[in-house]
Amino acid sequence: MLALISRGAAGTRADLARLTGMARSTVAQRVEALIEHGLVEETGAGASTGGRPPRLLRLDTARNCVLGVDLGATHCRVALMDIGGTILAASEDPVQIGQGPLSVLEHVDTRMHELLAEAGRPLETLKAVGIGVPGPVEFATGRPVAPPIMPGWHEYPVPEFFTGRYPVEVLVDNDVNVLALGERRFAYPDSAHLLFVKIGTGIGCGVVVDGHLHRGAQGGAGDIGHIRVPDAADALCRCGNTGCLEAVAGGAALAARLTAAGVPAATGRDVVALVNQGDGTALRLVREGGRIIGDVLAGLVNFFNPEVIVVGGVMARVHEPLLAGMREVIYQRSLPLATHRLTVVPSRSGEEGGVLGAGRLAIDHVLAPDHVNRALSPPTGAT
Amino acid sequence: MLALISRGAAGTRADLARLTGMARSTVAQRVEALIEHGLVEETGAGASTGGRPPRLLRLDTARNCVLGVDLGATHCRVALMDIGGTILAASEDPVQIGQGPLSVLEHVDTRMHELLAEAGRPLETLKAVGIGVPGPVEFATGRPVAPPIMPGWHEYPVPEFFTGRYPVEVLVDNDVNVLALGERRFAYPDSAHLLFVKIGTGIGCGVVVDGHLHRGAQGGAGDIGHIRVPDAADALCRCGNTGCLEAVAGGAALAARLTAAGVPAATGRDVVALVNQGDGTALRLVREGGRIIGDVLAGLVNFFNPEVIVVGGVMARVHEPLLAGMREVIYQRSLPLATHRLTVVPSRSGEEGGVLGAGRLAIDHVLAPDHVNRALSPPTGAT
Repeated sequence: MLALISRGAAGTRADLARLTGMARSTVAQRVEALIEHGLVEETGAGASTGGRPPRLLRLDTARNCVLGVDLGATHCRVALMDIGGTILAASEDPVQIGQGPLSVLEHVDTRMHELLAEAGRPLETLKAVGIGVPGPVEFATGRPVAPPIMPGWHEYPVPEFFTGRYPVEVLVDNDVNVLALGERRFAYPDSAHLLFVKIGTGIGCGVVVDGHLHRGAQGGAGDIGHIRVPDAADALCRCGNTGCLEAVAGGAALAARLTAAGVPAATGRDVVALVNQGDGTALRLVREGGRIIGDVLAGLVNFFNPEVIVVGGVMARVHEPLLAGMREVIYQRSLPLATHRLTVVPSRSGEEGGVLGAGRLAIDHVLAPDHVNRALSPPTGAT
Repeated sequence: MLALISRGAAGTRADLARLTGMARSTVAQRVEALIEHGLVEETGAGASTGGRPPRLLRLDTARNCVLGVDLGATHCRVALMDIGGTILAASEDPVQIGQGPLSVLEHVDTRMHELLAEAGRPLETLKAVGIGVPGPVEFATGRPVAPPIMPGWHEYPVPEFFTGRYPVEVLVDNDVNVLALGERRFAYPDSAHLLFVKIGTGIGCGVVVDGHLHRGAQGGAGDIGHIRVPDAADALCRCGNTGCLEAVAGGAALAARLTAAGVPAATGRDVVALVNQGDGTALRLVREGGRIIGDVLAGLVNFFNPEVIVVGGVMARVHEPLLAGMREVIYQRSLPLATHRLTVVPSRSGEEGGVLGAGRLAIDHVLAPDHVNRALSPPTGAT
């Protein structure tokens, strides 16, 4: 019901009864509970169909907000959003993730308090916090697991840092999952199955199934950077295997190949700059990288049959040659049934994608049926 | 709630309140509606914890049954099951699917009536029918789509054949999806994410996410037989591309390679027979086929992070060399996080897998929240 109200699909109790198929009496009872609990409010009157005009329902955005935090290798963005997804206040600072969790999270904590004060929202209206970090995370506990570019963060219990400081749940996930969630919610709300492919130094993928993140059995889903690609047996990967996708087509790999071809480039950003300067070798290599990534995605399209593949990360700044290479192979190698409505597009959420997605992670948690049921029910021992 | 009762996880109203987090009053109301509607019944008394002994709840299996139908290239199995999943009566006949829909479905219809009569179940206790067919199906309409081994079935509206004959919904899906559903329910009820890989003449995959079939945007998910494999550019596939997995490692491809190696074999079944007779070349080719399939699955393990990969189909009858080859590559190529609890196992549901899965498709439909909500609610205009 909350999802329907939140999407604007249902504005009245009658809408809810029609769309959920539940009895009007059940709907009325549930709506009362949601209003009492402060998640939903009534506003004015809707269009009458003959009798008394129905009262309109909407999320109570004044009394419910969340914080989204996007931690990158060298930046920290924080945004305060109401549960409708509107940004109320936001900050952005250069922060080195390598300074370790205590220093970085103290900074986040300060910004969180500042944003609540700036927007005039009391602490009790804060309902959850979502955090995206640039490394693998065990989602159930919020602990980063052996994150390569986050020294000092291995198994650090991020949510516990905030316990006592904020009386709400803190959800932590890796940046690609958070980007997938944000992009899906803001740019493709009607797409059930979406892949977000982030091409930076490495390559990762956020997997959305039926509108929800698919994290897999151990939270390892979407790790496509280490899928083996053909004809690359000599490419050594940081994971210890050879022939991995990111060892051939990631930003760092492209920079190394460009250097070997006589055009010095240290990082993916350098490759992007060279393409933008019109360097032909860089352009050729990026398109070739797109083809190699496309070969892996073609297999995933057959397996997963998504509606949309969104491409983000630093390398997506040169999305024309990159996506041209990807599309070339996907449309050649995937089955017609799976490609005739497939779109392969650059990310639209841009620099803000991470913080919007982190906020979305928190909102989805607040509006999830299990969470709402627990909040609405008295303890079961009490009757 | 029904799922909890069905799994045996909740036997009393108090269990339901505890497990769902809903208020006792809400639970009591919903349970009454389920009993009135005949889906749930009360039986005897449970263990008392001091006060009045709680009444036990269970699915009303006497008043609710479904039919599962498994159509293969040359067989037709039909089973009548109660909604607890117990088989009440079953039949098996040789039927050529190539005789076309009318002839085959008339046969199915006859068997369905016979089984209901044999088990003494009146037609009004039948709640749904599930059918698995050996080809692609548009699930929403139940129409096969260009099925290669089902001449005459293209776009035939299977559910409409039964309209008027049975007052219930008829669900049609491809055999691999149905096998995945059956295997998951009967052998791995606690696994959320499972892949069922069928290796017969071709190669296909059923994808279970969070306990539900993932069909993808156009119903094309799981079509892994046409993923490109390395070093196979000269293998022409029936899909028109070259280098597809099934053109190299499917039963028909293995038979052709065996013939080329001087050991005549016409089909995958012949290869299986040769392995069982101890033919060394056949054994070597099956293990090599397992490695090639394992290379594709290694990528899917990184992407999807399943708990279990189940291998079925004709070629799984020689699962020792086949799975040895698959495991060899999966454990070498997939990431440790995704493999440390992964199991790769032969199918346990055997010949009955198809019909059990088809019945499960029907049961899941009957117990699905949307379906139950609609059944329990009066028309929303009435109130």
